[in-house]
Amino acid sequence: MDEQAKTIRVACIGLGPRGLGQMKELLNVPGVGVCAVCDQCEDRALEGAAAVEERTAQRPAIYTDYRRLLKKEGESLDAVLCCTTWITHSRIAVDAMRAGCHVAAEVGGAASMGECWELVRASEETGKFCMLLENCCYDRNEMALFHMQRQGLFGEVVHCEGGYRHDLREEIAFGRENRHGRLANFIHRNGELYPTHQLGPIAKLLGINRGNRFLTVSSIAGKARGLHEYIQTQPRLEYLKNQVFNEGDVVDTTITCANGETIHLVHDCSLPRPYSRGYALQGTRGIYQEAPFGNAIFIEGLLGKKEGWDHSWEKFDDHREKFEHPLWARYLDEGVHFGGHGGMDFLVLSAFVDAVLCGATPPIDVYDTAAWMSVTALSEQSVALGGAPVPVPDFTNGRWIDREPFRRGIYCLEDVCGECFLESNLKN
Amino acid sequence: MDEQAKTIRVACIGLGPRGLGQMKELLNVPGVGVCAVCDQCEDRALEGAAAVEERTAQRPAIYTDYRRLLKKEGESLDAVLCCTTWITHSRIAVDAMRAGCHVAAEVGGAASMGECWELVRASEETGKFCMLLENCCYDRNEMALFHMQRQGLFGEVVHCEGGYRHDLREEIAFGRENRHGRLANFIHRNGELYPTHQLGPIAKLLGINRGNRFLTVSSIAGKARGLHEYIQTQPRLEYLKNQVFNEGDVVDTTITCANGETIHLVHDCSLPRPYSRGYALQGTRGIYQEAPFGNAIFIEGLLGKKEGWDHSWEKFDDHREKFEHPLWARYLDEGVHFGGHGGMDFLVLSAFVDAVLCGATPPIDVYDTAAWMSVTALSEQSVALGGAPVPVPDFTNGRWIDREPFRRGIYCLEDVCGECFLESNLKN
Repeated sequence: MDEQAKTIRVACIGLGPRGLGQMKELLNVPGVGVCAVCDQCEDRALEGAAAVEERTAQRPAIYTDYRRLLKKEGESLDAVLCCTTWITHSRIAVDAMRAGCHVAAEVGGAASMGECWELVRASEETGKFCMLLENCCYDRNEMALFHMQRQGLFGEVVHCEGGYRHDLREEIAFGRENRHGRLANFIHRNGELYPTHQLGPIAKLLGINRGNRFLTVSSIAGKARGLHEYIQTQPRLEYLKNQVFNEGDVVDTTITCANGETIHLVHDCSLPRPYSRGYALQGTRGIYQEAPFGNAIFIEGLLGKKEGWDHSWEKFDDHREKFEHPLWARYLDEGVHFGGHGGMDFLVLSAFVDAVLCGATPPIDVYDTAAWMSVTALSEQSVALGGAPVPVPDFTNGRWIDREPFRRGIYCLEDVCGECFLESNLKN
Repeated sequence: MDEQAKTIRVACIGLGPRGLGQMKELLNVPGVGVCAVCDQCEDRALEGAAAVEERTAQRPAIYTDYRRLLKKEGESLDAVLCCTTWITHSRIAVDAMRAGCHVAAEVGGAASMGECWELVRASEETGKFCMLLENCCYDRNEMALFHMQRQGLFGEVVHCEGGYRHDLREEIAFGRENRHGRLANFIHRNGELYPTHQLGPIAKLLGINRGNRFLTVSSIAGKARGLHEYIQTQPRLEYLKNQVFNEGDVVDTTITCANGETIHLVHDCSLPRPYSRGYALQGTRGIYQEAPFGNAIFIEGLLGKKEGWDHSWEKFDDHREKFEHPLWARYLDEGVHFGGHGGMDFLVLSAFVDAVLCGATPPIDVYDTAAWMSVTALSEQSVALGGAPVPVPDFTNGRWIDREPFRRGIYCLEDVCGECFLESNLKN
């Protein structure tokens, strides 16, 4: 890529509130031009175009049909940012890769195993990549913990926990009013609908698809009462007052890994509660746990010995700086863009742009994308079978067995990163 | 029972550290005489006898064979306190009931489904009861939460969590040296070996065996590394340095209930960590969560609305007094016996003695005992099947369907207890 080409041409598909926000954040990343926008709702497409114009003084092409966009613009595009619904983003990603574009896909689980395989095949056949925009991989805490784990501070990791525990009753129940896709999913589906926020960082920590892989998914869903009770308190939702919801209020999922680790996930979005991703990781030397009044850490012999009692929690925040990930150290130094979710949206988009600019494999590749997303479809199968474990396909077709950790650049999610970071600094 | 008979005659079987402690605590309960002690280790039996003599000036009969004890003393005994190992206490309990004694059994899971059924049959056929001494049912927090739930503060409860997360590496690994039974269990078994501490209070909360029941148990065990690593650091344990342990460091178990609730349990005793029982309960109006820097509560519209943000955790301790269970209110008023585990050992033993004195069903009956203990054997089956759900038998043979909550006395674990408490106060 010559000097002149160091701006990538991107089309943004899906411009609801999240898509619009991600597009604006993307425009904060150096080297990005948005030349086309698309949403099936014309008002959203127009709003997106206006936002681009306001920022860049260039009016992008406007579409309400992504197929038309790909047909007309595909050849001149480098990449597509796809922020449509959970049940549409995969097919759009596949079509975009086949039209010659790299894809950044907003998160969401898979509706079928077929769509996961199609993503993999499209990427392998076209040489284009599909990167799930799992922003939580770039969260400051998650990265510091990753950094600590790679330095051996937790010993051998044997168990991780995570969840998406977020009171979304209003967003779900008013889905028709606010054009949000969750409502129909909660009415019809039952499973771990939104696994990747904590599963992404955990998968990277455990080396999934690079010497490790998910083996089985087991899910159990409890009863669904939260939305029904909520709806009775909302006069505007009279038309939903007898609606039956299939999605259990709390869905427990356990994933086993080839190297013997277990991952426990909880999906919990239809009950009143404070937000939590419930991250915990446990190894032979220590433990970290997200907690209501301060995230907690205990590392045997290092953190947690006080007043004669050698098993005390310490506040992670009191120690985080010591273990700061190099990427975050630099980011804090340069000034964090707090636009989206404490800065992690900017980082995950930067990682994507960096990969497109360099034509290199992104830190979250299509095998990661497929494996993480597949947990949703598999968990629905397991729930339907009363919690029976179902096997996770090996999307790498055996390559996971000897794939090395992928070390490249400051956005790398494989290794301690001190080295990558230095290399990258020398390069810049 | 006439006035003169208001002392019950008890034999204590199993006098390791826990058995000795429980026997001493039992002697704090008014109306108890210990007339016989038994341990297969003679030194422990003698130590137990000395403890009784020191406290009561009466030397009890001493046995090293519980069968001989039951044969010689059975007819004159009211009850047996059984604190032997996990894999012996059921058979002793069965023999004791058949010898005419009520039984208080220290906690521990079942090794087989057969032994659960034997407990139930022995109790039904003899009219003697078998009460699992699940002290956590009488913990101050658990009782306050129970009280709150019965008053509807959490709305409809849909999900509970609990665990036994306790670094027992030293106790387990030095099992030969300290004559502790856990070592052999961790070498040979793999499952939820110690479920009842949190499952007991949860089962009471959910009305198990009285209009609700456990349906399935699904368990997944991760790899076993904690004990092996620990043993390498202990020169005295050279003989164990190549020992393979079957028990996974972390075992995740999910239990489904007839009324749609789910219960998630974690067994986690062979990694370095601070102690936790990980209690959480979640309903349509609120949530409670045990947490490292203060137990946390959120009740929609009541607790947790501050500074414009209506989803904040509050510290449970700041509110506990408002929701104190009547039994604990009285206990605090009278002065807590902190001898065992913050007072709850005294309460669970008092509940047992109260039931024996009154000849009434105890608050934890044989169906509770069997159902709670069965989770261990069922979880081993599920682990062996890769996490497949296995059905929980109905030990009541259908009686659970219309069994009413059991309301009697201040130790009742079924209802709000305000009423029972008043009745009981009027009686005393």
